[in-house]
Amino acid sequence: MEILKPVDLIGSKVKWIDTRFIPWEEIWRETEDYRRLAKAIKDLEIRGAPAIGVAAAFGLALAALHYPGKDLEGLMRALEEAKEVLSKTRPTAVNLFWALERVMKKAKEVAEKTGSAEEVREAVVQEAKKIQQEDIDMNIKMGRIGAKLIDHGDTVLTHCNTGSLATAGYGTALGVIRSAWEEGKEISVIATETRPVDQGARLTVWELKRDGIPVRLISDTMVGYVMSEGLVDKVFLGADRILLSGHFANKIGTYQIAVLAKHHGVPFYTVAPTSTVDPKTTLDQLVIEERHPDEVRCCPYPYEKIYVTVPDVDVLNPAFDVTPPELVTGIVTERGIAYPPYYVSLRRLLALDEG
Amino acid sequence: MEILKPVDLIGSKVKWIDTRFIPWEEIWRETEDYRRLAKAIKDLEIRGAPAIGVAAAFGLALAALHYPGKDLEGLMRALEEAKEVLSKTRPTAVNLFWALERVMKKAKEVAEKTGSAEEVREAVVQEAKKIQQEDIDMNIKMGRIGAKLIDHGDTVLTHCNTGSLATAGYGTALGVIRSAWEEGKEISVIATETRPVDQGARLTVWELKRDGIPVRLISDTMVGYVMSEGLVDKVFLGADRILLSGHFANKIGTYQIAVLAKHHGVPFYTVAPTSTVDPKTTLDQLVIEERHPDEVRCCPYPYEKIYVTVPDVDVLNPAFDVTPPELVTGIVTERGIAYPPYYVSLRRLLALDEG
Repeated sequence: MEILKPVDLIGSKVKWIDTRFIPWEEIWRETEDYRRLAKAIKDLEIRGAPAIGVAAAFGLALAALHYPGKDLEGLMRALEEAKEVLSKTRPTAVNLFWALERVMKKAKEVAEKTGSAEEVREAVVQEAKKIQQEDIDMNIKMGRIGAKLIDHGDTVLTHCNTGSLATAGYGTALGVIRSAWEEGKEISVIATETRPVDQGARLTVWELKRDGIPVRLISDTMVGYVMSEGLVDKVFLGADRILLSGHFANKIGTYQIAVLAKHHGVPFYTVAPTSTVDPKTTLDQLVIEERHPDEVRCCPYPYEKIYVTVPDVDVLNPAFDVTPPELVTGIVTERGIAYPPYYVSLRRLLALDEG
Repeated sequence: MEILKPVDLIGSKVKWIDTRFIPWEEIWRETEDYRRLAKAIKDLEIRGAPAIGVAAAFGLALAALHYPGKDLEGLMRALEEAKEVLSKTRPTAVNLFWALERVMKKAKEVAEKTGSAEEVREAVVQEAKKIQQEDIDMNIKMGRIGAKLIDHGDTVLTHCNTGSLATAGYGTALGVIRSAWEEGKEISVIATETRPVDQGARLTVWELKRDGIPVRLISDTMVGYVMSEGLVDKVFLGADRILLSGHFANKIGTYQIAVLAKHHGVPFYTVAPTSTVDPKTTLDQLVIEERHPDEVRCCPYPYEKIYVTVPDVDVLNPAFDVTPPELVTGIVTERGIAYPPYYVSLRRLLALDEG
């Protein structure tokens, strides 16, 4: 199975697939300007927490590569400016800040050590590429770990898109599904449409069909029904931010799937790298991004604005919701599976990092 | 507030609003041919259990009015044929069968008593009109009864469309909301989009905006979120078929809203006339209609087929789900509110009929 990389740094350009046009068209875009890349993140051309992290890192690489001067001070200022612009694109995605911080930390270290703009430039590019490769490696590792939870014959329900298109490649929850399939387990997937942006109908279905993994699409209204009919063995989906308490923010609709899974006794797993765990933020500090009302008023169609309601109706459009730990069977990470109580197990997984 | 009648018999024609084009256009259609009317029911031009019942009755009226002969035998045969065609349009809508049976019973009585084709023709038309008027009267009565459950300041969540467009006029669950509003209670509504056919986004929003009742639209993924945020005081929605056990079939998505309401301690009411109660069918006999997969694959847009996924993806598309009695706070009917245990309270309400 060849791994699709939705964002890549090739020479002095960043190239990415515009996910808004999937499944209608496969449009690849490229730029040398980090501002254009920031816009691509903001406008959901690039989406999914890990893909956003990689794209942000590549944004800093672009800023470094195309800084016209040779002075270290100017380069560092340009990097800070780029970081500022890139960090304002998606407020809920912790990977964005994590990736920006990591690259900037590297830049500062090399700056201090060498005093050379050229060395900093090279270090920034290498660190961004490392984030990309590490994400792919991590996903494959998570896939193998999570696949142990999937049995031969299982039907797995998934929400939103957590595949190659949402990560540096391979995917998180979809990586687990891919891994189980690659191991030869005969599984099938039920994908939710995931209104309002339809990441499930558009992206997850597209990826699974591409890999030949059996998939059935349902409307978001059908989750309770398929569970009550015994059609779902397990739920696997992603996380945009995980708190140490085990609460996690993810695509709107995740929370109600968790409630429904609990009600029907269906195991419910979230799959995310440990970089998604945010040890600083507490539940009351979590800001839920409210997106444009036209997402809800329209159907997701990139060529034309198609309203499915009275165009000026008031709308609620939270991009995320928060699922509490008591609804979560386990959290699959590249370092193993965390089980309740999460305030113990997540700390333990993170602590390995400090070893 | 003027009551919109979505289906009406005017002279020798049936006139109806094509709900598929709302909110984009208000298209009124008319026909003298019951087969055309049957097609309108099958194709969802006319929808909602009570509206379908009224339309079916008018279908028999058309068959009677346009039977070319003067012989009673031929007329009765024509009516039986029309009944056959009309009964095959929507298998889950009990009102359809109820209305057809009621009109046919009347026709047979008059045939036996008078032996006159002319008298039968007139009786069929009058019985159909009576079903229409009774439904409107019933809705107003249900509205008044149900409105007592709504307090000043309440936000009511509703699913699908249960308004004028789904009934002979005024509505069931939306009739309750209308009635509370007419009484001067300051309420607001959260309407779910109701994928795949979007009756909430298209019809409920259109009706509420028309009446000036405050409404906010949400995607079906947001129900859990709005409840967990304390934004929903009560749920009111309709029922297509109620069993004596208190189980009821309604638009797909109803069941999961009921589970979510229970989880969050939000009172959950269904509103339907007693004609919706089906004393013959048991839970295991209930057939869930599976509709065309393109409903799920496409966005609801009557002018053009717009896929939101890979066009040949497999799909599940149950039109209805079943909500068990333990999730239902009360059932509002024109004869009062039934509370658990429903196998007692529903029987009691129905028994009044036999007095």
